[in-house]
Amino acid sequence: MPAAEAPFLLACRREPVPHTPVWLMRQAGRFLPEYRAIRSRMSFLELCRNPDAAAEVTLQPVDILGVDAAILFADILLVLEPLGLGLSFSPGDGPSLAHPVRSPEQVKSLPRVDVADSLAYVFETVRRVRSGLAGRVPLIGFAGAPFTLASYAIEGGSSRNHERTKRFLLEHPAAWSDLMSRLVDVTADYLNAQVAAGAQAVQVFDSWVGHLAPADYSEAVLPHMRDLFARLDRSVPAIHFSTGTGGYLELVRDAGGDVVGVDWRVPLDDAWRRIGYDHAIQGNLDPVTLLGPREKVVERARQVLAAAGGRRGHVFNLGHGVLPETPVDNVRALVDAVHEWSVR
Amino acid sequence: MPAAEAPFLLACRREPVPHTPVWLMRQAGRFLPEYRAIRSRMSFLELCRNPDAAAEVTLQPVDILGVDAAILFADILLVLEPLGLGLSFSPGDGPSLAHPVRSPEQVKSLPRVDVADSLAYVFETVRRVRSGLAGRVPLIGFAGAPFTLASYAIEGGSSRNHERTKRFLLEHPAAWSDLMSRLVDVTADYLNAQVAAGAQAVQVFDSWVGHLAPADYSEAVLPHMRDLFARLDRSVPAIHFSTGTGGYLELVRDAGGDVVGVDWRVPLDDAWRRIGYDHAIQGNLDPVTLLGPREKVVERARQVLAAAGGRRGHVFNLGHGVLPETPVDNVRALVDAVHEWSVR
Repeated sequence: MPAAEAPFLLACRREPVPHTPVWLMRQAGRFLPEYRAIRSRMSFLELCRNPDAAAEVTLQPVDILGVDAAILFADILLVLEPLGLGLSFSPGDGPSLAHPVRSPEQVKSLPRVDVADSLAYVFETVRRVRSGLAGRVPLIGFAGAPFTLASYAIEGGSSRNHERTKRFLLEHPAAWSDLMSRLVDVTADYLNAQVAAGAQAVQVFDSWVGHLAPADYSEAVLPHMRDLFARLDRSVPAIHFSTGTGGYLELVRDAGGDVVGVDWRVPLDDAWRRIGYDHAIQGNLDPVTLLGPREKVVERARQVLAAAGGRRGHVFNLGHGVLPETPVDNVRALVDAVHEWSVR
Repeated sequence: MPAAEAPFLLACRREPVPHTPVWLMRQAGRFLPEYRAIRSRMSFLELCRNPDAAAEVTLQPVDILGVDAAILFADILLVLEPLGLGLSFSPGDGPSLAHPVRSPEQVKSLPRVDVADSLAYVFETVRRVRSGLAGRVPLIGFAGAPFTLASYAIEGGSSRNHERTKRFLLEHPAAWSDLMSRLVDVTADYLNAQVAAGAQAVQVFDSWVGHLAPADYSEAVLPHMRDLFARLDRSVPAIHFSTGTGGYLELVRDAGGDVVGVDWRVPLDDAWRRIGYDHAIQGNLDPVTLLGPREKVVERARQVLAAAGGRRGHVFNLGHGVLPETPVDNVRALVDAVHEWSVR
């Protein structure tokens, strides 16, 4: 099938589809025994940096689950490595940065990054995945959004209240703006290079931004997101995903993106009405539902489809990533249910 | 001043006020040196159980900050003790329950609680606070909402994804409903006994419920919340506070309460419009703002007041509790700014 006719890309462009396309954040991940088999032989970062292995885990869910898109296996924090922040991952504790950014002076001294060189392994993975897919389904590239990257860079890892980050943007607005601009530069280059290598859509993950008050989002994030989306290669659709932003989806929409990805904590029908039907929408089953009984998975999936109301432009997804303990059979049942119940 | 004329109670009833009343969640807490002095002599649970000391820390912020209401010093989890769950607090790690509820059988075997006996120390604190306040400002009593209590009871402590809780409600709907009904019983008794002892308003804290998808909220929480609010003593106003529910504030409003407390992640004007002006609203400054520069605190406070638009029925508060590292002077500046900028 020509790529342009893939249900996922049709839905991103709000064109008619034979069925609602579905893919799942973290579909290439720990819930799959085939993924765990590969991870048993190398660390998470080694896997990210190994184009053969990263391509293999990217392809796994396409074969195993029957999803309508592949998403590149990588991590949103890889761009922080060439910025000199010292990225590592420890089992259980998650990511850690040895050299967090804590002062305006440190922002100024961040190096300019040539992604073609420092992240070449990612683009090589993209090329191998496209070859391995042989046109079966489209490939989605992705990156972390500047705020979420800035939060990791400042906090030095995950954070409960993002206190350092919020203090930084309140106390040092000029340095904050400089940091965000630098992150927009590297992220735009990174995503455009993924598209040049073969990515057929891109998703920007603003995983932490929902911790901000709307006034801070408007002042400290939104202008930079507009700048980022304006600089992306417009030949492919851009998905703007965030979590915890159910209180100000209108601002998220205004920040850019062809498709707005919403988490599970907002009714999809309300969300789409607030965002506007001139945007496609992606979401939004609670990932924890997949740990429950099969019939509940199907029931909740049908409720999400009903909320989408058969409108053009719905990409089915979870509201956040698949949890590691998720039964594979439940995910298969979900994919089948979405395909079955959405046939036009 | 007669209690009925206190700005806080007037605002709860949407009557005209001389200035917007302000109090802060966790205003009796670790950011105050006077609180830390008392805590250095006893553990958190010892403090909760000591009416003299608990009354003293309840009164501290009234004198030090000039807030318009006192809120009882206690913990939402105290009701889990007489239920036999084995409550303890460890410094840093937060609450822990030695005997979590993991099966329908365990729900059935939970004891019926006589709050008058098992939580007598709380009501004694209420009486002492009322005496100490001598009518200066009203006293707010409070309790955890059934969902948040159930989540702690099932998880055994704090939780990132509330996986056990969500699985329980999906897998065992009848036992879940039984657990929620039992928690409604004890919470209604507990709040009504606080009112009988002298509390002049009550707040129900549903701190964790915003992790639920709206479909789960509607099925598994909302009917129980309606039951709870219907059974509360109607002689005092009830505040319904939750966090992370910016995506479905309409459901939270439908669940009950005279005043809806919103967190900082929703614009107050949008929130109030969605909730409806026939309800009072409480909120919603980001607690982290108080860690920033004084002028930002005042600027953001004025933005919240501007969003309230001078309408009757706004109680100023944070969107969540005061953080321990908050400078006391910033809190004083906030209280003063709210009083000054809201003079009618």
